Amino acid sequence: MQWTDVLATRNSRMKASEIRELLKLLDQPDIISFAGGIPDPALFPTAAFSKAFETAMTPEHAASALQYSVSEGYKPLREWIAGEMGKIGVPCDADNIFITSGSQQALDYLGKLLISPGDTALVTAPTYLGALGAFNAYEPRYARLDAFSNETPEAAQAEAAEASDGKGRVKFAYLSADFANPTGETLSLEGRKALLARADAMNIAVIEDAAYQSLRFDGEAIPPLQALDIEAKGGIENSRVIYCGSFSKTLAPGLRVGWVCAAKDVIGRLVLMKQAADLHSPTLSQMATNFVAREIFDEHVAKIRAIYSSRRDAMLAALAREMPEGVTFTRPEGGMFVWVTIDPKLDAAEVLARAVADYRIAFVPGGAFYADGSRRNDMRLSYSCATNEQIDEGITRLGRLLRSF
Amino acid sequence: MQWTDVLATRNSRMKASEIRELLKLLDQPDIISFAGGIPDPALFPTAAFSKAFETAMTPEHAASALQYSVSEGYKPLREWIAGEMGKIGVPCDADNIFITSGSQQALDYLGKLLISPGDTALVTAPTYLGALGAFNAYEPRYARLDAFSNETPEAAQAEAAEASDGKGRVKFAYLSADFANPTGETLSLEGRKALLARADAMNIAVIEDAAYQSLRFDGEAIPPLQALDIEAKGGIENSRVIYCGSFSKTLAPGLRVGWVCAAKDVIGRLVLMKQAADLHSPTLSQMATNFVAREIFDEHVAKIRAIYSSRRDAMLAALAREMPEGVTFTRPEGGMFVWVTIDPKLDAAEVLARAVADYRIAFVPGGAFYADGSRRNDMRLSYSCATNEQIDEGITRLGRLLRSF
Repeated sequence: MQWTDVLATRNSRMKASEIRELLKLLDQPDIISFAGGIPDPALFPTAAFSKAFETAMTPEHAASALQYSVSEGYKPLREWIAGEMGKIGVPCDADNIFITSGSQQALDYLGKLLISPGDTALVTAPTYLGALGAFNAYEPRYARLDAFSNETPEAAQAEAAEASDGKGRVKFAYLSADFANPTGETLSLEGRKALLARADAMNIAVIEDAAYQSLRFDGEAIPPLQALDIEAKGGIENSRVIYCGSFSKTLAPGLRVGWVCAAKDVIGRLVLMKQAADLHSPTLSQMATNFVAREIFDEHVAKIRAIYSSRRDAMLAALAREMPEGVTFTRPEGGMFVWVTIDPKLDAAEVLARAVADYRIAFVPGGAFYADGSRRNDMRLSYSCATNEQIDEGITRLGRLLRSF
Repeated sequence: MQWTDVLATRNSRMKASEIRELLKLLDQPDIISFAGGIPDPALFPTAAFSKAFETAMTPEHAASALQYSVSEGYKPLREWIAGEMGKIGVPCDADNIFITSGSQQALDYLGKLLISPGDTALVTAPTYLGALGAFNAYEPRYARLDAFSNETPEAAQAEAAEASDGKGRVKFAYLSADFANPTGETLSLEGRKALLARADAMNIAVIEDAAYQSLRFDGEAIPPLQALDIEAKGGIENSRVIYCGSFSKTLAPGLRVGWVCAAKDVIGRLVLMKQAADLHSPTLSQMATNFVAREIFDEHVAKIRAIYSSRRDAMLAALAREMPEGVTFTRPEGGMFVWVTIDPKLDAAEVLARAVADYRIAFVPGGAFYADGSRRNDMRLSYSCATNEQIDEGITRLGRLLRSF
């Protein structure tokens, strides 16, 4: 059997994630890795989860924890999330919340909801690699969302018209406004308002990936794009923003619980999609997340913020001290990443090869984060899983490495 | 915002499942429902799961249970499943096994893998409603797989050529060979061999949905299509059959754990797809399923088989006694369903309305199980969640109802 005889055309766009392939090679204890970008397992609230699973298996909950359930998600969790959304300027109720198997599933479903082959998705450059992976399955074209530019709504409209060439139209802008993966950067209030004005002019959806939003260490919180749009439009049912949240960075990723917050029209369509795609996310994961979130969310997030913040400080201090002239780096106010830009003559993937072989350090080369492959001289460093001592030593080695070219 | 302005074309084919909408109306305690087709929650191995979750939260397992994991699934579970597949004539190893969030996700991913818009999927008539739902998202055409017919390979080849009209080609045949949902019927050994010969002639994949396969009550087990194909081709790497298994009907559906068993070429592509779509199924669900399956699978399945078998007996006896002349019904050797065919002048959906209003019984009308909507005079009855007494009383009422037309 030649499987290529029966494959759908989309398969040509589905490739292995460079990062995931890379991570498989890094399971060597003497390597100081800044490659991951995953939460530190030492910070998981294991005791709270352990108690939650025990509760879920009591006669009051066990039959519903183990039985088929509704596609929209476990109602008590949806209610808790709706309350949290209210606190960040997004007044809504449980019917505006849809539970997904991690926010990665939200991105897959939103690609499925919005993209026909040939449609255009606007993405930042660089953008979250996993979003490109999710969208690719639906065969979009990409155009650059220069979220930080001062382009006028009129120019945006012209751009949208140009991309609508009979094969499709611009469907949405995708971005992470807070401590974005991979750069760690945050979009300013003015930038957010300008982006929403452009989206209005283009009549497109806005997908706000808020995976890191709860992890602000300092600086003042800026309202989510969805909050600003609701303020302008008078309510969530009129908003064009689809917000994707996640418990992966705050509680634990292994349970795969995320959510979408949006107008009920969108939620209803996502529910139909999930009914056909996996029926529902595991009930037990949702139930346990609900118990744990209600019991310890704020206190736990405060605790991990303090730890990640200290690691960020260690990394920024070491970078300031060790980087050779000409190297620049971002200064994130939260999240897990610093984006380091090196000499444009260097390819970060080649730098990585030498980093692993000779310096026993690792990071993710930046090329894969560009939909158009336009740059190769950036590196993503994560401080989330390293101790301050490892960060200090690892960045010292990185400085030596960069000076060796 | 008019969401229809930005939706992908596939949305026009994504509709609410009649059955799921119906089930919402049936939460009334005085109704005897044969509509569900879900496992009896009283039979869930709750104590074993409870112990499994406790083990998963011990220091040995907790960090990996809560952390990100690999897209192909939890290796010890994949190894156990590979061993089970060997016992039913499918020699394979863990690398031929891919863990999905229930077998519904397997159907979604296989549609995504194989269908470009305009391609043709061959399905039985009737077929599993959820398969149509999953495939619809990828905009196929359907043609009828008359799995029980004596069509020659030559005729099949001609049929395939006819369906390949430049807009697509026939990609796969989908069927459930054992105690199929909705009919309860089983495909004979000769029927299986004929179907594989047709698939060879057409050069298409075969998707074998084995959700109910472990629930055989009596009669002799027939090898899975995949086992027969492996026997003919010399090994799983040469087989065109993609086998979809599930723990939903044997252990518990709420954890959403199923699997695909296929050639490594297929598995590798599904892993890439999952990486982009939801990263991985929840680790804890997989870990707990592994612990429980290794401890009690055979013994537990023997127990639930005995109970479902007795319910099937009660339903067949009551149908033989109560059905008016002209009504026919299948005699399943396992699974959860009996398929009842009534007077072709009646529409089972209208019969259901009167059944609920006046007789306080429920079933699923058969129309939704036909991709082409060609028949309306069948009803699907499930005996899985009713006691023998309820079955006796419910079928007595059904007889009175059918005689009232």
